Amino acid sequence: MARFFKSRKKLIGQAPGELTFIGQRLMERPRFRLISYNKENIRETETENTSDLISAMAPGHINWINIDGLHESIAISEVGKAFGLSPLVLEDIVNTDQRPKYIEDGKNIIFFLKQLVYNEISKNIIADQITMILGPDYVVTFQEKAGEFFNPIRERLRNNTGRVRKSAADYLAYRILDTIADHYSVCLSSIGELVEANEEKVLSKKGDQVIENIYRLKTEISFLRKTIRPVRDITKYLKNSDSELIYETSLPYFIDLDDLLAHALETVDVYYLMIGDQLNIYNTNLANRANDVMKVLTIFAAIFIPLTFVAGIYGTNFDYIPELHFKYGYFTMLAVMAIIAIVMIIFFRRKRWL
Amino acid sequence: MARFFKSRKKLIGQAPGELTFIGQRLMERPRFRLISYNKENIRETETENTSDLISAMAPGHINWINIDGLHESIAISEVGKAFGLSPLVLEDIVNTDQRPKYIEDGKNIIFFLKQLVYNEISKNIIADQITMILGPDYVVTFQEKAGEFFNPIRERLRNNTGRVRKSAADYLAYRILDTIADHYSVCLSSIGELVEANEEKVLSKKGDQVIENIYRLKTEISFLRKTIRPVRDITKYLKNSDSELIYETSLPYFIDLDDLLAHALETVDVYYLMIGDQLNIYNTNLANRANDVMKVLTIFAAIFIPLTFVAGIYGTNFDYIPELHFKYGYFTMLAVMAIIAIVMIIFFRRKRWL
Amino acid sequence: MARFFKSRKKLIGQAPGELTFIGQRLMERPRFRLISYNKENIRETETENTSDLISAMAPGHINWINIDGLHESIAISEVGKAFGLSPLVLEDIVNTDQRPKYIEDGKNIIFFLKQLVYNEISKNIIADQITMILGPDYVVTFQEKAGEFFNPIRERLRNNTGRVRKSAADYLAYRILDTIADHYSVCLSSIGELVEANEEKVLSKKGDQVIENIYRLKTEISFLRKTIRPVRDITKYLKNSDSELIYETSLPYFIDLDDLLAHALETVDVYYLMIGDQLNIYNTNLANRANDVMKVLTIFAAIFIPLTFVAGIYGTNFDYIPELHFKYGYFTMLAVMAIIAIVMIIFFRRKRWL
Amino acid sequence: MARFFKSRKKLIGQAPGELTFIGQRLMERPRFRLISYNKENIRETETENTSDLISAMAPGHINWINIDGLHESIAISEVGKAFGLSPLVLEDIVNTDQRPKYIEDGKNIIFFLKQLVYNEISKNIIADQITMILGPDYVVTFQEKAGEFFNPIRERLRNNTGRVRKSAADYLAYRILDTIADHYSVCLSSIGELVEANEEKVLSKKGDQVIENIYRLKTEISFLRKTIRPVRDITKYLKNSDSELIYETSLPYFIDLDDLLAHALETVDVYYLMIGDQLNIYNTNLANRANDVMKVLTIFAAIFIPLTFVAGIYGTNFDYIPELHFKYGYFTMLAVMAIIAIVMIIFFRRKRWL
Amino acid sequence: MARFFKSRKKLIGQAPGELTFIGQRLMERPRFRLISYNKENIRETETENTSDLISAMAPGHINWINIDGLHESIAISEVGKAFGLSPLVLEDIVNTDQRPKYIEDGKNIIFFLKQLVYNEISKNIIADQITMILGPDYVVTFQEKAGEFFNPIRERLRNNTGRVRKSAADYLAYRILDTIADHYSVCLSSIGELVEANEEKVLSKKGDQVIENIYRLKTEISFLRKTIRPVRDITKYLKNSDSELIYETSLPYFIDLDDLLAHALETVDVYYLMIGDQLNIYNTNLANRANDVMKVLTIFAAIFIPLTFVAGIYGTNFDYIPELHFKYGYFTMLAVMAIIAIVMIIFFRRKRWL
Repeated sequence: MARFFKSRKKLIGQAPGELTFIGQRLMERPRFRLISYNKENIRETETENTSDLISAMAPGHINWINIDGLHESIAISEVGKAFGLSPLVLEDIVNTDQRPKYIEDGKNIIFFLKQLVYNEISKNIIADQITMILGPDYVVTFQEKAGEFFNPIRERLRNNTGRVRKSAADYLAYRILDTIADHYSVCLSSIGELVEANEEKVLSKKGDQVIENIYRLKTEISFLRKTIRPVRDITKYLKNSDSELIYETSLPYFIDLDDLLAHALETVDVYYLMIGDQLNIYNTNLANRANDVMKVLTIFAAIFIPLTFVAGIYGTNFDYIPELHFKYGYFTMLAVMAIIAIVMIIFFRRKRWL
Repeated sequence: MARFFKSRKKLIGQAPGELTFIGQRLMERPRFRLISYNKENIRETETENTSDLISAMAPGHINWINIDGLHESIAISEVGKAFGLSPLVLEDIVNTDQRPKYIEDGKNIIFFLKQLVYNEISKNIIADQITMILGPDYVVTFQEKAGEFFNPIRERLRNNTGRVRKSAADYLAYRILDTIADHYSVCLSSIGELVEANEEKVLSKKGDQVIENIYRLKTEISFLRKTIRPVRDITKYLKNSDSELIYETSLPYFIDLDDLLAHALETVDVYYLMIGDQLNIYNTNLANRANDVMKVLTIFAAIFIPLTFVAGIYGTNFDYIPELHFKYGYFTMLAVMAIIAIVMIIFFRRKRWL
Repeated sequence: MARFFKSRKKLIGQAPGELTFIGQRLMERPRFRLISYNKENIRETETENTSDLISAMAPGHINWINIDGLHESIAISEVGKAFGLSPLVLEDIVNTDQRPKYIEDGKNIIFFLKQLVYNEISKNIIADQITMILGPDYVVTFQEKAGEFFNPIRERLRNNTGRVRKSAADYLAYRILDTIADHYSVCLSSIGELVEANEEKVLSKKGDQVIENIYRLKTEISFLRKTIRPVRDITKYLKNSDSELIYETSLPYFIDLDDLLAHALETVDVYYLMIGDQLNIYNTNLANRANDVMKVLTIFAAIFIPLTFVAGIYGTNFDYIPELHFKYGYFTMLAVMAIIAIVMIIFFRRKRWL
Repeated sequence: MARFFKSRKKLIGQAPGELTFIGQRLMERPRFRLISYNKENIRETETENTSDLISAMAPGHINWINIDGLHESIAISEVGKAFGLSPLVLEDIVNTDQRPKYIEDGKNIIFFLKQLVYNEISKNIIADQITMILGPDYVVTFQEKAGEFFNPIRERLRNNTGRVRKSAADYLAYRILDTIADHYSVCLSSIGELVEANEEKVLSKKGDQVIENIYRLKTEISFLRKTIRPVRDITKYLKNSDSELIYETSLPYFIDLDDLLAHALETVDVYYLMIGDQLNIYNTNLANRANDVMKVLTIFAAIFIPLTFVAGIYGTNFDYIPELHFKYGYFTMLAVMAIIAIVMIIFFRRKRWL
Repeated sequence: MARFFKSRKKLIGQAPGELTFIGQRLMERPRFRLISYNKENIRETETENTSDLISAMAPGHINWINIDGLHESIAISEVGKAFGLSPLVLEDIVNTDQRPKYIEDGKNIIFFLKQLVYNEISKNIIADQITMILGPDYVVTFQEKAGEFFNPIRERLRNNTGRVRKSAADYLAYRILDTIADHYSVCLSSIGELVEANEEKVLSKKGDQVIENIYRLKTEISFLRKTIRPVRDITKYLKNSDSELIYETSLPYFIDLDDLLAHALETVDVYYLMIGDQLNIYNTNLANRANDVMKVLTIFAAIFIPLTFVAGIYGTNFDYIPELHFKYGYFTMLAVMAIIAIVMIIFFRRKRWL
């Protein structure tokens, strides 16, 4: 299936609000988790269904609901109803081929994002959709599959490290976005290491796997750019936001996030150019080697073909070939051949082929 | 005939308002259909001519007039008069080589669009012009040829699925635009599959048909970009529209549509780059293979040409060639030849050609 | 002489207002024509000089003055004086290397345009400068050479077809611009046919004239782009114009014109990319063919060079070569040669060169 | 030394206002000239030093001071003081590696420009910095070296040709800018002729010097673009200027100048693309010729190598080779060889190599 | 490790304000220096810790604090507290992989910059982060490593050269920025010299190291562009700044700085194109040389292979070969061979291969 654009073939004519999950069903059951916290307390809850989850929300606390797995449309609908999400938003949550974007709907800000994780073993990037809903005192996150992606944030909440327990919901949203962006940096830096490893291969003229590498890296980098670029629209919006949900004290954090993404995008462009240059250099090296091969061929052919011809002449069986009967005829021939060979070698030296 | 720009050679000097259909005459007769619906009722009418159609429109209902076939200029003129369309608009309806655009004329919003259908068998994209007129309580659609393109919407109207029966004319217009855009997604995703299928061919070095594929795909992708890009101007207009014909409740739908098109355009760009990279990779593979061919040639030539020369020397008929009379002269020659061959092989091993 | 930028070498330091025609003198004498028309009447006049022409203008009519030939600077000056044109404008009229542009001078709008005509025989585009002055009740057009370019408009005026006789001067200006733009479409569509004809040549690998075609087409397309792009600045201005000379009822016509040019420019870009791709494909085909040639060479060389070497060994004249005296020595040699050849053929089959 | 960016290595840490001329010292002594003119009078003065020059300025006249040679920093300082120039401006005057720009300092407008002169003999472009200061009733020009660059303007002043004597200082500034721009046109048109001359060489496949030409022309065109592009910022400013130094009557002249530069920049882009295309075409021609060479080689090798092999067989000295004793053995062999050769020729004909 | 984007792998989930230095620990101990100056006095202090440094600041003076070495987070924190820097800013100071940017925090303007130094010996550019904090009467600079980078400014302060001692803190900031920008110019001009040196190599067809050079230079130039481009955002901000920290008298200096950077960026682009063109030219030269090699091969093969074949015929041992017994058979054969050779040579002359 096409990687960059999932077909919506079966959905043509379907209206928004009819929730059809188009990803792969990856988990047995979705997971529903809630962390309620404020400066003093923190409470973690995991429930069987979303209605229990919603009723477990603690007033006067920041409530972080995390839903892993998007294939139970009833659960998604219930959450949607509880937080006043429109059918269109719900459709976008389950349709996991969304372009990163944000929607302000009067009550919440909804963020559609891609979480990128670099797989050290397969050396490629794995993308999953994350939807985050930021409300006055809650953050809801939807993930395609369960994972340990947000564990560092959970750990910090539990241990009350940093300022997250002391801050409003928007700071939690910032920490989630920042975690996602940090993974972008990791992906980028890993891809960068592959690009530079390939650079050495290209320049050392070994060339095993170089072309496949180049193509794969170009495709990965295009994918990174396509994924990260629209996220900057989100950070640009956030750093200038006048939404009531974003406190002014959080703006410097979003500005910092925006700078990080700008830096990442510029780096993506540099890598893209570098990998393109590598292909050019590789092609030039190939042409250089072709020239070397041809020079070897030409030198051998140009030296020995005339000599063989001379030998051929004296191999003919004519009745009368005077040279054959000269006393030193044979040695004269050898001498002439040596002279021809030397002249040829000098010729090729002059042409700098030897 | 040029695919990307139909000649208007015969029309030079012709004024707008003189309706000359420039497409191919594809149907025997045009088809005139009307669906009038509101929350409670739905009525479908098919008539012989446009005046019957217009008089069949039901007040207090949303009226969807669908005209298939553009070659009867009288019918087009009658519809134009009924809905107050200017001669220029009518000319643009029959001139099926329009760039996607919209016109606000005070009473209606007129959309000129391209409907793209991916043909699974011929593996190419078929384009037809669709004109849609959105008025206060009616939508008029003109299609070049009759087809089942809008059947899913008709079905939903009949079955009263979703919100379309409960909504105003602008929501029907949204559903029509969304259906068109969904087909863009299908085309894009089908092209994407072809691009990725070709990618495997390029990398596996089989290379049958690869170049034709690359050229055809590049041309299709250029065509997609050229067609989809101006549609985004329409959705950008719609999502910020202050027209009385667009209700505020519909704006989120148009924003969603705009995001879909933005996503599609970015994907088009990625495919365009990918297919360009495939050509580069294919060329590099070609150069690699040329090097391999030349290495084989050079190895054979460089080993056997000197050996043949040695044999040639002892094939000469000089009276006095001392080596010929040595006891083991022949075997010595064979041994020398073997040594030359081995030296050559070592030389090529060192050069990594073997 | 450089096609894209005529040298103004001799004019350095010359002030505006000194009229020096820099084109080629193409006609014996300039031609001065006037058409005065309104709803009821039409009168055509052709005079010997411009002063007669100007005094022949009919009040209460729309007066269309057409001047063919720019080398009589006195005539140009007289017209300039009559319509209040500044020296700079006059200089630009005779200096036929103007970039398309418009000037609003309070009384008139002056348009500098390029008329492009596609020559079916030489298969290239011929460009001439057209200057058009739009005033309250007159239109003045200056052409480098006399031609039938505007005859369709004259015909329609005479026959009172369409709305031109009923409309103000701005509608005549629109018809002139539209005629020019229609010719752009014809050029574009003709070039498009050449591009697609070349496409077949490139893909069918025949390749006669392909490279020259590609270069010529690229140059033509660059020229089209350079010529058409600034015209869009003019149509953009017209469609938003608040000049008193442009009536609101004409705006839809200028919007339509602007769309046509936008469409044309996008098509130019598609053709430019297509022709570039054709060059790439052609190069790849060349490389493919080079590989085929080298494979043939290598196969012949690699099969026969070892065989010839074997024959060479038994052509030597050593006193003692045991194989020569074997009963079936000769046939054994032939058999060995056959085996070598078969092994080689299998080798090349495996490499898919055969 | 790098052509595009002069090193300021020795100046690091130096403050503005310390005047160090970084160009080459080209003249013995700077030259100081003054032309004072109005409608009635004109007076030319040449002095030994700048203070005499400044005191020679005539009130009620337009005073044009021209200073050739920038290496006497005392002179520059004196002029700076007289016209109220800031240390930064003075530094920029002597640092001849300025990007074209303008500075409005309340009293004057200062223009930093590049004068380009096309050298017909060496066929390259020579650039020098010109600084022009426009004040209420004076214009000061600084040139790196003395030259006849502005002589046409001086001549017109003396002869009272055109409107320059009747106009304010801004018109003189316009004439100076226009003279510089006219030289840009000459350079462009000369480069264009070289591009088109090269085009013929490329297409005629002669190819002497083609690559060097292409590289040199690309570099020249890049240089032209880099030089002309920022000048358009100046003309854009001038045509919309509300400075008191620019009279409204001069605006049409600056608009015209801006159009000329826009035209020039578009032409530069066309030439840049053309020269790039020439390289592509040249490469394709090279590949075509390589194919031709290889075809010749392959044809010779493939015809004669098998024939030589046949001859080799019958040159072996086996005791029993039946064919050797056939009556027409030799002629049969010749006939077989002829057949092999004909088959080969047919084969190559079919492949269209012959 | 990836050069263009340092991995923040270990920092995922870490909040701002936890200071982890990610560069290499380059110095034993950080260095703390203070220069307090005004028109009359100047005092230099170097302390063991930052608190001594801060208490040594002189009121009524401009205080320039310079901290070399970023690995002692306590020192950084103390400075941060003293000047009211937010945790985010402190994090950015120690995280030396910042994109150049500025932050206005109400009290200070903080600049994150890259200092580039061209290393004459290794012929590459070394980048270090510099953070500069501009307050009402102080400037704080943080550098990754101690160096003599700012020594020219210190020298001028001590010697009271130029206007720096007489000006406010913003002028010192300007001098620091200008010093950084001057080094950019030096880097650029040094790279430019390398580009031009390489140009000669490419055109002279020597080609040693050319490809490696091209790749390295492209990468260096990409790096320069990536580093300098965001600095222009800073200068654009400064030249239009309405911050109280920037006095109006300083604006011309910042405008000048902005022009310098614009010039530098345009030059970077020109070099980037030049080096790309060099690769193209080099490839064309390679193809040219390949053609030359193949021509030599083909000429030798095409002349001697037929001759050898003729000799081969008369080397056969057929019983009856009439030519062998002709009186001048041998000499006739030689003559025929000479004719064949001459015909071949004429053929290749015509093809212009000889």
